[in-house]
Amino acid sequence: MTVVTFLSDYGLADDFVGIVHGVIARIAPDARIIDLGHGVPLGAVGYGAVRLARALPFMPSGAHLAVVDPGVGGSRRAIALRTAQEDRFLVGPDNGLLTAAAARFGGVAEAVEISNSPWRLEPVSATFHGRDVFAPVAARLAAGAPLGAAGTALDPAEVVPTPMSRPRHEDGALVTHVVGTDGFGNVELDADELPAPLGAEVVVSIAGERHSATVARTFADVAPEAPLLYRSAGGAIVLALREGSAARTFALTPGDEVGIAPA
Amino acid sequence: MTVVTFLSDYGLADDFVGIVHGVIARIAPDARIIDLGHGVPLGAVGYGAVRLARALPFMPSGAHLAVVDPGVGGSRRAIALRTAQEDRFLVGPDNGLLTAAAARFGGVAEAVEISNSPWRLEPVSATFHGRDVFAPVAARLAAGAPLGAAGTALDPAEVVPTPMSRPRHEDGALVTHVVGTDGFGNVELDADELPAPLGAEVVVSIAGERHSATVARTFADVAPEAPLLYRSAGGAIVLALREGSAARTFALTPGDEVGIAPA
Amino acid sequence: MTVVTFLSDYGLADDFVGIVHGVIARIAPDARIIDLGHGVPLGAVGYGAVRLARALPFMPSGAHLAVVDPGVGGSRRAIALRTAQEDRFLVGPDNGLLTAAAARFGGVAEAVEISNSPWRLEPVSATFHGRDVFAPVAARLAAGAPLGAAGTALDPAEVVPTPMSRPRHEDGALVTHVVGTDGFGNVELDADELPAPLGAEVVVSIAGERHSATVARTFADVAPEAPLLYRSAGGAIVLALREGSAARTFALTPGDEVGIAPA
Repeated sequence: MTVVTFLSDYGLADDFVGIVHGVIARIAPDARIIDLGHGVPLGAVGYGAVRLARALPFMPSGAHLAVVDPGVGGSRRAIALRTAQEDRFLVGPDNGLLTAAAARFGGVAEAVEISNSPWRLEPVSATFHGRDVFAPVAARLAAGAPLGAAGTALDPAEVVPTPMSRPRHEDGALVTHVVGTDGFGNVELDADELPAPLGAEVVVSIAGERHSATVARTFADVAPEAPLLYRSAGGAIVLALREGSAARTFALTPGDEVGIAPA
Repeated sequence: MTVVTFLSDYGLADDFVGIVHGVIARIAPDARIIDLGHGVPLGAVGYGAVRLARALPFMPSGAHLAVVDPGVGGSRRAIALRTAQEDRFLVGPDNGLLTAAAARFGGVAEAVEISNSPWRLEPVSATFHGRDVFAPVAARLAAGAPLGAAGTALDPAEVVPTPMSRPRHEDGALVTHVVGTDGFGNVELDADELPAPLGAEVVVSIAGERHSATVARTFADVAPEAPLLYRSAGGAIVLALREGSAARTFALTPGDEVGIAPA
Repeated sequence: MTVVTFLSDYGLADDFVGIVHGVIARIAPDARIIDLGHGVPLGAVGYGAVRLARALPFMPSGAHLAVVDPGVGGSRRAIALRTAQEDRFLVGPDNGLLTAAAARFGGVAEAVEISNSPWRLEPVSATFHGRDVFAPVAARLAAGAPLGAAGTALDPAEVVPTPMSRPRHEDGALVTHVVGTDGFGNVELDADELPAPLGAEVVVSIAGERHSATVARTFADVAPEAPLLYRSAGGAIVLALREGSAARTFALTPGDEVGIAPA
């Protein structure tokens, strides 16, 4: 099986995703394309990187195309990587989007700059490198072409790391940051572990306001509309409201601070 | 052809759907996955059941995965069924979601409880049984594994029936209930038949207010923004506004009563 | 490879798209289905036509199904076309949706009226010809059936042309029209060329109000929230706001006039 997975912030209102599928199908007619999702918030590189890293272990090995690319048309590099474990290929902009995923597979074994790839579609547009650069490279790699032929070699140490915030301890609280929001309004934080045992009540501080929340295993453990902190199926620590949108209720966007302290 | 169809309330903003695709593709590389749609309103088991039952006759026979699962992580069973006709497999939570679809194919011939299936992905998460339980079972069944090996046998009579409301006659009116709302705001009712001949004017009562509507064959038969009742392509009786959203205009949600009487 | 591409205004909230996939898979089990996108604004035939024409050159040759069909159930014809170049098949309503795409491939070489096609699914519904008429025809054509067997021959000159507005010159300004809006709120105009050299400032007149805009290569060339005019990757002339929605900010809908004059 030849597989190309595809993650982006293109959304599904347009034909961007469909056009990328067509480009891949023309080059690699046997490749199976798996849409990992196209609802990454526009330009949210860090959140896209985290999602990609979480999802790839569930995907068959192949060429993994990811496009969250606010710098398209500017000076950022376009890259294709081979991971140390499983020889997976990662293709996308060199803005940190791919690095966290590579780390899940032992890091980057080989890197290539592909902005001027011989495989790109000419003329390359200013804004749609998903179609013109990334998709053709991913399709050829999936079809078995050697990575070295995709462009010019790049020192793996030069690949841009994934932008990651880190929580800090302050005045007895753990001060976390919003990584991103899922489609239900659940808010992913940059904490590594649940801040208290299951069942504990905590105080969540957002923009100077304090809210009670329960550390829970799942939504069913709290009352409707009650706030909870839980570990997601992907391993993230998440602030949510049962039957509500924490993102909207608390007006949270990526980078915002969320303090967590014992009740 | 090996087919897995997939219906859910996951939405497309996240990578849940993509991850399920990846899990299936790893287990059954040759399976074709057909997304039946992932826009079932969150937790709307009855509406999801109706949609699944309507859609499956148009699908190739295979393993039919459906996940609308507000009780995930609780005590509800996870099940896999074989239908009496066509030997289709249905996989999902045992909350009634699968039962109406099974009835379309002669009912349940064989049922298996799969919560502890040997095929599940370990560790099973608290909230993402689509990935950890249902997808692996659907993929193996599609690939030809025997249903009995998926878990422990369950008496088909124990499978939870689909929750269904029924209209009633009251004071000369037919009092129907909202089953669900499609993406255009058209409102599906639990009536079995059109309440009056094509072209007839009726009075629709919603929350104490009365509105005129036309019983019509299609939208083109009424003026823009006018209310109509029609039989959908799927066989449902639907209340709609031409070029408008009946759900929003009339503030209707599942379970609400809609009375229909002669003008 | 057997390919069916599929563009529509069905959206993804429902199971319409999934049901069409199922119908195609039952008839042509080996066909690969590429979703070109289902977010064409409801009933926007002209915009759908332009999108289809732009996207098809990136698609493998095959049967190209397109459904934007406000006249479904009325008297409009249903058609299947073969293009003069590449022998691509186009299937959909005869309302202009397919004509611009055919022109990209040398025009219509052969046309067939398919409303009463022997391949349609009986009974044909009043509203879901995508399922009952267009999908079965597209699937059979993709699987190799001859176009002539799809229905009754139609003079290619009878095929309805794509509805297209044209810009005009007036009082020193180029008066363009809105063709449609993409998922980010970028507004496509009916201009053929950028109205001024890259970097030039222009005055954009909308509903009697004047706004400054920059003719730019890409979003990165202007300040956040600033208006720009650029040529899209698909070749369209687009009015946009960096990090904003031009459609919402300027309250633009298809057909609206947008004047462009030197600053």
